Amino acid sequence: MVKQNFVLKGDICYSPSLKELKCVKNGYLVCKDGICEGVFEKLLPEYIEFPLIDCSGMLVVPGMIDLHIHAPQFTFRGMGMDLELLDWLKTYTFPEETKYADVDYSRMAYREFAHTMKNSATTRAVVFATVHREATVMLMDLLEETGLITYVGKVNMDSDAPDDLREESAEISAFDTVGWLEDIEGRYVRTKPIITPRFLPSCSEKLLNELKEIREKYDLPVQSHLSENPDEVALVKKLFPKAAFYGDGYDRYGLFGKEAKTVMAHCVYCTDDEVERIYNNGVFVAHCPTSNMNLSSGIAPIRRFLEKGIKVGLGTDVGAGECESVFRAIGDTIQVSKLYWRMASKDCAPLSFAEAFYLATAGGGEFFGKVGKFEKGFEFDAVVVDDYELSGLNEIPIISRLERAIYLEADNKYIYKKYVGGNEIDLD
Amino acid sequence: MVKQNFVLKGDICYSPSLKELKCVKNGYLVCKDGICEGVFEKLLPEYIEFPLIDCSGMLVVPGMIDLHIHAPQFTFRGMGMDLELLDWLKTYTFPEETKYADVDYSRMAYREFAHTMKNSATTRAVVFATVHREATVMLMDLLEETGLITYVGKVNMDSDAPDDLREESAEISAFDTVGWLEDIEGRYVRTKPIITPRFLPSCSEKLLNELKEIREKYDLPVQSHLSENPDEVALVKKLFPKAAFYGDGYDRYGLFGKEAKTVMAHCVYCTDDEVERIYNNGVFVAHCPTSNMNLSSGIAPIRRFLEKGIKVGLGTDVGAGECESVFRAIGDTIQVSKLYWRMASKDCAPLSFAEAFYLATAGGGEFFGKVGKFEKGFEFDAVVVDDYELSGLNEIPIISRLERAIYLEADNKYIYKKYVGGNEIDLD
Repeated sequence: MVKQNFVLKGDICYSPSLKELKCVKNGYLVCKDGICEGVFEKLLPEYIEFPLIDCSGMLVVPGMIDLHIHAPQFTFRGMGMDLELLDWLKTYTFPEETKYADVDYSRMAYREFAHTMKNSATTRAVVFATVHREATVMLMDLLEETGLITYVGKVNMDSDAPDDLREESAEISAFDTVGWLEDIEGRYVRTKPIITPRFLPSCSEKLLNELKEIREKYDLPVQSHLSENPDEVALVKKLFPKAAFYGDGYDRYGLFGKEAKTVMAHCVYCTDDEVERIYNNGVFVAHCPTSNMNLSSGIAPIRRFLEKGIKVGLGTDVGAGECESVFRAIGDTIQVSKLYWRMASKDCAPLSFAEAFYLATAGGGEFFGKVGKFEKGFEFDAVVVDDYELSGLNEIPIISRLERAIYLEADNKYIYKKYVGGNEIDLD
Repeated sequence: MVKQNFVLKGDICYSPSLKELKCVKNGYLVCKDGICEGVFEKLLPEYIEFPLIDCSGMLVVPGMIDLHIHAPQFTFRGMGMDLELLDWLKTYTFPEETKYADVDYSRMAYREFAHTMKNSATTRAVVFATVHREATVMLMDLLEETGLITYVGKVNMDSDAPDDLREESAEISAFDTVGWLEDIEGRYVRTKPIITPRFLPSCSEKLLNELKEIREKYDLPVQSHLSENPDEVALVKKLFPKAAFYGDGYDRYGLFGKEAKTVMAHCVYCTDDEVERIYNNGVFVAHCPTSNMNLSSGIAPIRRFLEKGIKVGLGTDVGAGECESVFRAIGDTIQVSKLYWRMASKDCAPLSFAEAFYLATAGGGEFFGKVGKFEKGFEFDAVVVDDYELSGLNEIPIISRLERAIYLEADNKYIYKKYVGGNEIDLD
């Protein structure tokens, strides 16, 4: 994997900050050794020898970051949407995830997932697998091949799940997790493990303790679910009476930020104390608006998180979200924020297009380091969108073209090129 | 236009009633003289001579009905979404609609609109044009060519709009409306006029009176907007102090159901009295969930309307809705109904997939007569969706394939054939 030096020419857009969307018409985006040198209106002499990739007239944007997606649920995306979380898990999700004990099934299913992700606008993702060690390695192998950069978690769950999916004990879950980490030791350049307790209701305290130790030993990040749905929150309260709130149940086991880089999906029903802890511990929120609608969960108060200074990115949450399009997640983020303002709290102003775009790029990108902006020193993730077919009669500003491309989910049809960490992805 | 006799073979789905979604695998859908004969598991001898169009393995569904769409707003769909209704009208809509005074601009813009509609899953639509007589005729000419069946309205507005868009007086507005009706007299087979006061704030009482007379004289249906946004509702209250509620302002001029077949878009903020009047007068509600999110309007209580027995269909409301996909409107209908249940009223159960599909087909179809079901005597509107590329590893029931195709907006890519009133549409 040779890091190339090159220049992308096109109509370049990115978010320097939450409120700001910078657009440069016929600009030059420079990649040097896989790292962004910046966006230039004129090409500086020092880059004149770099190969020029001419995408004039096309939109060039940072790669989309998906902070929450379930690979094994891709097979049933867009189906069975008439249930709430706990029933949906029992009826659709757990039975499907059980199939990943079968390596042949996993290979076929994960191949489809990886293929779709490769051709999407997503350049980096934080991914749930299942409890199965072998299938998780297979998923990681396939994702490594795509060229995308991902965190992938073998799921841990030793309680409150069907017998054929639930791990037999905390010890076996821990043993398999360590085994999985050993299996993949040194195996990948782009694919990294992440500790993945499914959610509190499916983890015994013993298992959480085991995960704490494994996490510390291997110095791994953490992903899970938090305060998604009222029934789930009530269940956690019942199962973890000692926890001050849902997130405290993770925090007691070192699985909630601070030295453990952590992303928590949903955060629809966080109490004030929980919001405070999220902020203090530097936990990332993965906002999944599509999923939160589909499972009748509600709307997360993202404006409140942003005002507090909490780090927020977007998640598609396939399969509770119907598709892997982060463009769709951007549109939904704006739309539900408007409903939240209208129906729940006039203190939470709707998110603007610029703000939602920031979350999908720089917001989530921070989980991966210096990612998500076209600024000097950032890793070079870029997507080129050929929006010609969406253009109409009127000459419109680049920012409006971008807004239209996002709202019309141009990532389904019009991705022309994609780069991750300076490497071009071989799109179909 | 010869009405053909033929048989479509495929995986056929339609809604016999609000709660019921009927699916027949490898079924036969028979068209005789442009009229549906029904769906059959085996082909009856009387149809054996009819040409068989083999769409085996594909989904065959009734054409989508769009009860509310603005043709001139197609040019700026998916842009400028960060404003509420009244500001959005002033900033984006009115300036764009002003351009339709120019016939050349109208031709180019409406050509794009008609072309997109032809290739969509929509078979029938109720369409707003602008105030301009000549441009409206051009739009109708272009829509007639598509083969779709539409109602198209020349807009009336003599108040509260920019000078260069507003009609100079009620008399001139009425004169132009009659002139428009004379221009198109006998001109179309599929394209019909509809009386179209923009919304109450842009109509003087004098104009409403003129429209009442024109409507009666020509026996025309009516379309407009109703109780979309709190600021708009407040404005109506101020401008029409004598009206008991928004809809009463139309009803006083015979523009609200009863003998005047009427469709009102939005209905987000209807009072109890208004709901009662809608029901009693047989007014159709065009539910536009996407638009209602984009303009921060809110969520219409569709469950309440359905329980009351009100006639409801779906509208994409381009350009406040970002695209012309009724599939998208179905998904959004379900999603916002879940949020309404969660956030506004536990008495309003979320709409199921089957219910939302009914609204998009039979619900809206009723505005056009016997349309929207595959039952004997219904006009033959059908769309064939080739969902092969969406299929996955697992064999899934037809109803789940349909749900997935709708949620993933398969109408953007996978429309294989389309029939309107028995005629095949020549898709690109």
